Amino acid sequence: MSIEVFWGSGSTPAWRVLLGLAAKGVPYESHLLSFSNRETRTPEFLALNPRGKVPVLKNGEFVLNESLAILAYLNREFPSPPLFGLSPAETGLVWRSCLEYVGHGDPTFSVVARPLLFGQSEAQAQAIRDGLPAVYAELDTLNEAVKDGFIVGGTLSAADIVWFVALHFLQRAATRPAAANFELGLLPFGARWPNLIPWAAKMEALPGYLETFPPHWLTSDPPSSPHLT
Amino acid sequence: MSIEVFWGSGSTPAWRVLLGLAAKGVPYESHLLSFSNRETRTPEFLALNPRGKVPVLKNGEFVLNESLAILAYLNREFPSPPLFGLSPAETGLVWRSCLEYVGHGDPTFSVVARPLLFGQSEAQAQAIRDGLPAVYAELDTLNEAVKDGFIVGGTLSAADIVWFVALHFLQRAATRPAAANFELGLLPFGARWPNLIPWAAKMEALPGYLETFPPHWLTSDPPSSPHLT
Repeated sequence: MSIEVFWGSGSTPAWRVLLGLAAKGVPYESHLLSFSNRETRTPEFLALNPRGKVPVLKNGEFVLNESLAILAYLNREFPSPPLFGLSPAETGLVWRSCLEYVGHGDPTFSVVARPLLFGQSEAQAQAIRDGLPAVYAELDTLNEAVKDGFIVGGTLSAADIVWFVALHFLQRAATRPAAANFELGLLPFGARWPNLIPWAAKMEALPGYLETFPPHWLTSDPPSSPHLT
Repeated sequence: MSIEVFWGSGSTPAWRVLLGLAAKGVPYESHLLSFSNRETRTPEFLALNPRGKVPVLKNGEFVLNESLAILAYLNREFPSPPLFGLSPAETGLVWRSCLEYVGHGDPTFSVVARPLLFGQSEAQAQAIRDGLPAVYAELDTLNEAVKDGFIVGGTLSAADIVWFVALHFLQRAATRPAAANFELGLLPFGARWPNLIPWAAKMEALPGYLETFPPHWLTSDPPSSPHLT
């Protein structure tokens, strides 16, 4: 059996899975699907995930979607290094951080980032400006959480991966040409949230990291830096 | 140490935790907070969860929010019976189902249920009608998933708990007076989705189940049945 991953460039959930595999040192066969060519809408892909979403992981006959479920599965199949804590309390705190991102971080970041990325920044200009204080509040919390190295305990966890890809998503949005029309007050992250930079650098140092970075972010005009700044 | 749970009547995330404790047979001290008296906005509660959301679990000095994180924690502290599967594959599938509820089921159900529950059904009448086919599709999928007893494998899991409280939320919405203005086509669930009723009955038979049922749902006019029909 070998692990196969179906992913798409720029999908942060898919990126979580690639980073989880990198953190665990598990080799995998990469299937990079094109959203613009509707490769997540083919009958073959819909047979793997009827919801038509990446990531999907295959391990032999076993097929799984939902990025955090895939990380939980990988953590059972390949326990070392652990991505969901060493103790019951750490397990709870890792999941709390992941789920607070899903329920609070993602909607908060999306208000600002999605219009900038998807050509809606003029129509959503007021919503972007109104949404910035909540983004700052999430970054304040994260900056405090990582001051000792990682979000939970002394080791990299799924929580770090979830927030790391989200920050790159924010950085990507804040470096689009449309962002020049706003005083976002986000970049460089290190000016206001200095703990984030050495924290991100630990994930950026994972073996194979550059191969997990969304390929089209590297070749766009302007390109995105694979390093948080 | 003893487990304490801070919850609110009608919060389905809080209800998940109470059912998880019931399934594991873990006794707990109940702190039922009143939303209308703003008891989730007191300094004491915000010290437990700065986001002001129930549920919160305390175990001695350890404090945790986010319902699925609490279930993951409890599953490590009290491993029997397992709520997140017996094998890596089952663990992945349980989390997939929980997270598909969060990402797909909840927004789909909310389009129909929330306006009926919160006095917005006239303003949202078209959205309710337009949202019904997606609700049916989720129920079709669930009905198929539980045909052999439970969503994953042969035992009750966190996935069953997540979807069970969601169906009671839907049933509650569909029995409000405002629902009489719509042809919802949901109730009784057993007519169109017959597998759901024996499946739900297994959770309704948990020791202490009635004490987990949202208290104000039992005393409202009309009351909600604690049994899925």
